[in-house]
Amino acid sequence: MKYKLSQFGKKIEKVSGIKQLMDDLGQAMTVNKDMLMLGGGNPAHIPAVQRRFRQGVKDILESDRTFEETIGNYDTPQGNPAFLEALAGLLRNELGWSVTAKNIVLTNGSQSAFFVLFNMFAGRFEDGSYKKILLPLAPEYIGYSDVGLAANVELFQSFKPEIEYYDNNLFKYHIDFEKVRITDDVGAVCVSRPTNPTGNVVTDDEIARLSSLAKARNVPLIIDNAYGIPFPNIIFTEVKPYWDEQTIVCQSLSKLGLPGARTGIIIAAEEIVEALSEMNAVITLAPGSVGAALAYDIVKSGEIIKLSRDVIKPYYEKKAQQALNQFHYGLRGVDYCIHKPEGALFLWIWFKNLPITTDELYERLKKRGVLVVPGKYFFAGLSEKWDHADQCIRVTYSQDDKIVEAGINIICEEVKNMVSVH
Amino acid sequence: MKYKLSQFGKKIEKVSGIKQLMDDLGQAMTVNKDMLMLGGGNPAHIPAVQRRFRQGVKDILESDRTFEETIGNYDTPQGNPAFLEALAGLLRNELGWSVTAKNIVLTNGSQSAFFVLFNMFAGRFEDGSYKKILLPLAPEYIGYSDVGLAANVELFQSFKPEIEYYDNNLFKYHIDFEKVRITDDVGAVCVSRPTNPTGNVVTDDEIARLSSLAKARNVPLIIDNAYGIPFPNIIFTEVKPYWDEQTIVCQSLSKLGLPGARTGIIIAAEEIVEALSEMNAVITLAPGSVGAALAYDIVKSGEIIKLSRDVIKPYYEKKAQQALNQFHYGLRGVDYCIHKPEGALFLWIWFKNLPITTDELYERLKKRGVLVVPGKYFFAGLSEKWDHADQCIRVTYSQDDKIVEAGINIICEEVKNMVSVH
Repeated sequence: MKYKLSQFGKKIEKVSGIKQLMDDLGQAMTVNKDMLMLGGGNPAHIPAVQRRFRQGVKDILESDRTFEETIGNYDTPQGNPAFLEALAGLLRNELGWSVTAKNIVLTNGSQSAFFVLFNMFAGRFEDGSYKKILLPLAPEYIGYSDVGLAANVELFQSFKPEIEYYDNNLFKYHIDFEKVRITDDVGAVCVSRPTNPTGNVVTDDEIARLSSLAKARNVPLIIDNAYGIPFPNIIFTEVKPYWDEQTIVCQSLSKLGLPGARTGIIIAAEEIVEALSEMNAVITLAPGSVGAALAYDIVKSGEIIKLSRDVIKPYYEKKAQQALNQFHYGLRGVDYCIHKPEGALFLWIWFKNLPITTDELYERLKKRGVLVVPGKYFFAGLSEKWDHADQCIRVTYSQDDKIVEAGINIICEEVKNMVSVH
Repeated sequence: MKYKLSQFGKKIEKVSGIKQLMDDLGQAMTVNKDMLMLGGGNPAHIPAVQRRFRQGVKDILESDRTFEETIGNYDTPQGNPAFLEALAGLLRNELGWSVTAKNIVLTNGSQSAFFVLFNMFAGRFEDGSYKKILLPLAPEYIGYSDVGLAANVELFQSFKPEIEYYDNNLFKYHIDFEKVRITDDVGAVCVSRPTNPTGNVVTDDEIARLSSLAKARNVPLIIDNAYGIPFPNIIFTEVKPYWDEQTIVCQSLSKLGLPGARTGIIIAAEEIVEALSEMNAVITLAPGSVGAALAYDIVKSGEIIKLSRDVIKPYYEKKAQQALNQFHYGLRGVDYCIHKPEGALFLWIWFKNLPITTDELYERLKKRGVLVVPGKYFFAGLSEKWDHADQCIRVTYSQDDKIVEAGINIICEEVKNMVSVH
């Protein structure tokens, strides 16, 4: 760049993994509509959900002043007060969490929440020391990787998981509690549940153990619940949602079907909510009003629970199973393993003996019109080199069946050719 | 807070001026609806504008797939490609600027833009040095004050203006070019035009001089054009809009009537647009889709120009004149002066001989149910102490006539009582 850039400027000038991903995704969704998009985190357009939001917009247009107030007024930096009240009621009634509106703050998407939370609890401290965010289980979400503000310092510390193998080429990662230690240089612990990219759902027991480890060291446990309970409930196993005063739960309206509204929701102790509201004021004056307005009625009435449980969850569960079956069929003769799909929008596929890295596989597939995400982006903070990171891909199964099917066909074909030539 | 906070965390934990302002504003717009809100930057609800956006939503609902794509898809980190194309066309045709879609990036409100731009060009540098943002004329926008990321360092350098006096208790600030120097520790120059809080419009000649000073030192000139030409065109004097490759112009859809959609627009050299897109990906994945979708038709057709020029501008000009007349009438016998209202939503009133600071006046007025903003928040980066900062208030005249009238009555009454008791 022709101008001199600050440390911060230099940091953002480099192309990040998430930028490549979001560029690919955005281009595929807007310009290159022929691309088979199995690479992003875009939720499905579920007809029943879309119809509900269409109705919501009509209700807003017909209600006296609601439309004008939604588009024409800034909310408070914490978010729309009526929405916060309604959501607190829902969380108390449905999950039994002892929260009030003072425990909730909205952000422009949960990515913004992680940007602020991670830099608030980790990075450079006033005494010159540095702290990290502990990710107890790698692989973890690609979007975390580049948010660190401190220059030339790794923001994350992550650990190799234990691997449990099942029949039929399935496996599951577990947190390796033998390795995970919360040392003095850890400022917070974070885990996504369901996990992006693997579709893993960390067990109740693992969450309980993480929580007690975090409490013992007085650091917060951040649970990225973007796909979780009570909404959008894209979770195919029986687990308990978890929150207490020492836990920061991050929800979102994106995977419910509203990514364009950019609405993140953080549930935390009051003092954390106050600090995050402060940050909203400084970074963006106030969070956007549209997501909260569109979701208000279904949160207030509790309909969001039913919509998530009875429409969204079965929709994705069926798609997960279809995609899984197709891979099992298409990869006969290949040495592969797939993470047990327990939630979220992704299959995580592990090719043990490819002659190339999955970064190269990504490029080859892109040339053939299919986008996936190579595994290497999901291992932020892992200090030891691990070949496994170059052997996996993340495949999104949220798009229309025809797209997913055509994309998986090409992936299987490309991999099989490669393995048989070798 | 019970947890240890990083430098960044400590910085945001303190209550900022903008947070107090946005809290007051948000509360007044949502909960305490009896408060006479002359304190915020909320735009008016102009019936003709609201009707147009209502129609826009209906068009989106009726158009095939547009609604589903708007709420249900992430845009690219740069923003919606079709909107960027349409806007580039508008800027070429209407203003003659030589821009393409590659010169434009959207953000979640222009506050986000300033957060990134200021920290990108100023703050801490890799060689350990620091640079500042030069604000050539204080007072400047309150929202800039707290965005600096570098700890314990003032991000701004600003200068006392020259004051030109007119008849009828009016005055106007001018940039004092005798004082303004772009030294080595300046990373960028920034000016809001029309100026928030004063309603000043920096002259074409002043912009030309700033631009050539910035070019001579190879730093960008940032023009905060949130109220300016071509939209929302809340500008009551004849001036030329300005852009070139070394200028970064920040527009917004907020003052057009869409603050709830949080849509900022940055027009800049391609390399800057790329860096800002990168930052969008990291901070928020993609900017919100709703503002661009709502404004697309009127940008594409050019109707936004007519709406701004024929509806929005005269609406505010009339309100400015009404508010000005009421102050002149209500403050008879008080030693006051009002900045010539040339644009934006504010009157800037200077009380020369109050027995209290305007910070105390703010508190007294708040008790009487009127919100204004005390002057002291608008002087970030001014190194010398200046009593003037405690002698001014910003009064917003964008709300309904009855609210503005009742509020100004109370302000005049409070001030007159104080002066006559003294």
